[in-house]
Amino acid sequence: MTVTRDDVLQAARRIQGRVRRTPALQVSPTVTFKLELLQHVGSFKPRGAFNRLLGAKEQGLLTGQGVIAASGGNAGLAAAYASRELGVPARIFVPVNAPAPKVARLRTLDADVVQVGNEYAEAYEAAVMAAEESGALLVHAFDQPEIVAGQGTIGLELLDQVDGFDTVLVAVGGGGLIAGIATALGDSARVVGVEPELAPTLHRTLAAGELVDVQVGGLAADSLGARRLGTLAFEAAKSYDLRSVLVPEEAIVAARNELWHEYHLAVEHGAAVTYAALRTGAYQLSDGERVVVVVCGANTDPSTLS
Amino acid sequence: MTVTRDDVLQAARRIQGRVRRTPALQVSPTVTFKLELLQHVGSFKPRGAFNRLLGAKEQGLLTGQGVIAASGGNAGLAAAYASRELGVPARIFVPVNAPAPKVARLRTLDADVVQVGNEYAEAYEAAVMAAEESGALLVHAFDQPEIVAGQGTIGLELLDQVDGFDTVLVAVGGGGLIAGIATALGDSARVVGVEPELAPTLHRTLAAGELVDVQVGGLAADSLGARRLGTLAFEAAKSYDLRSVLVPEEAIVAARNELWHEYHLAVEHGAAVTYAALRTGAYQLSDGERVVVVVCGANTDPSTLS
Ligand SMILES: Cc1ncc(COP(=O)(O)O)c(C=O)c1O
Ligand SMILES: Cc1ncc(COP(=O)(O)O)c(C=O)c1O
Repeated sequence: MTVTRDDVLQAARRIQGRVRRTPALQVSPTVTFKLELLQHVGSFKPRGAFNRLLGAKEQGLLTGQGVIAASGGNAGLAAAYASRELGVPARIFVPVNAPAPKVARLRTLDADVVQVGNEYAEAYEAAVMAAEESGALLVHAFDQPEIVAGQGTIGLELLDQVDGFDTVLVAVGGGGLIAGIATALGDSARVVGVEPELAPTLHRTLAAGELVDVQVGGLAADSLGARRLGTLAFEAAKSYDLRSVLVPEEAIVAARNELWHEYHLAVEHGAAVTYAALRTGAYQLSDGERVVVVVCGANTDPSTLS
Repeated sequence: MTVTRDDVLQAARRIQGRVRRTPALQVSPTVTFKLELLQHVGSFKPRGAFNRLLGAKEQGLLTGQGVIAASGGNAGLAAAYASRELGVPARIFVPVNAPAPKVARLRTLDADVVQVGNEYAEAYEAAVMAAEESGALLVHAFDQPEIVAGQGTIGLELLDQVDGFDTVLVAVGGGGLIAGIATALGDSARVVGVEPELAPTLHRTLAAGELVDVQVGGLAADSLGARRLGTLAFEAAKSYDLRSVLVPEEAIVAARNELWHEYHLAVEHGAAVTYAALRTGAYQLSDGERVVVVVCGANTDPSTLS
């Protein structure tokens, strides 16, 4: 199962008008931010979610049973949002200990929140079973072709918006975002993953040369804390020779504060890793290298900006 | 003394590379946000400040005495920022009771902060005198031709970025911003001012048909609380048939919260008035009318977003 550039082009046609074409902001002669934090519900995830739902709808697979997803984070918000926009019910599975504000937020999007299990793995199992039993459409957080292709539409927009760039820095959780962007860009640019030192899923996978379980934690775990890379991301990593650079927690905090003070962008920790890589030199630019920094999430408590 | 479209074009050439070309974000088929809150130091004010400083420099009027301004708000930040970038000293006059965080912020931009008088009128008088004595360049917050022309560069960017628009909603304090944008756009679009009910400077001036002192207060007073419209803005109001719609405090608060929750933009109260006018119908769109909402300031305490 491979995702192709044609799949990304098809996704772009499908989701057009449903997602925001987010702006690119040139911040220096060689650095451009892609402001994907301004997307609906605060992250890129609606791109994949709409592509998954609309693709299923074309095949008659989006029924009155609606949609099921397992995530209290941005993927859950996106599944709930896309479902509401398309007029189908969404059931979002989260563990019993999911934070109350996240559950409340999902409910404001009319989702039916199902709290089950002590951790995400259990909530996910319950979601898969419920989808099989009910015929509802399962929307994965990163490892389905339509999800990867949907996230890839960011890459197409970049080709259109940015006048020449060599490198794109992308945050990695389960790898749907980086796989999609790499597929969209092909040989047009180098795509580099960035992860917290405490959630090095792609990094460890590349080192092992195979899909492995990785210990994850830290400040960005709610967005970048996938324990295992997606199979589609693993394929993409091999096809497009992806790499991953790591950034420490302090660098993430400092980058997030700087994004607020210097650029007036309020971002979540997971969305600050790419700028952190640039700022700290974890990713070293060569002379004149033109880089796009994907700034991908705004789901944060603004009172924690300092 | 009139500002012309040529002055705005000249300003655009002068300040190019010094200010950010801020993005436009289409949020519905007929509504586009101009994200000027992403400008350096969080507002459009550096456009005018750079144009003033660089214009003076061309004439040999920017000496080692540097720059003087009177403002603890965005105009002061912009004067300090532009001075630092151009390597000249800045003295910023504020009243003795100016809030400590504002003074501290000016100092981080290397400004020499002079605290004098009990209100801005007194700080301003002291600034004018100090400029006359020292030969430093006085940078007004809104009522100098280079300031108006600099702010107008937003209008030029809009013509380039937005594919057809009928109306631009602009916040008004002393009127430098609206005068500049109206001058840049001429007959290309209608420009409508928006003010808080509690700071109706343009509104009252238009009603009186002459420059009058206006009582100002409310949540946005620090950015939109000029007591008297600028003479250049008054000229522009007559030339371009400007109007002003008013929004109540609650609408400003609600719009600011919605800008955060729906669009992930953390804005100050003064920058929320335009969206408030759209949301409440204080400005009534006609069928199919395409409108640009200028979102012009991010200098806010993010912990007050709810
Ligand atoms: C803000 C943000 N950035 C990055 C990611 C990582 O995306 P992916 O799991 O597709 O690698 C996520 C995933 O939730 C996210 O929410
Ligand atoms: C954020 C913001 N919006 C609008 C204005 C009003 O600008 P003007 O005084 O040019 O009308 C100001 C002035 O300080 C401001 O800071």
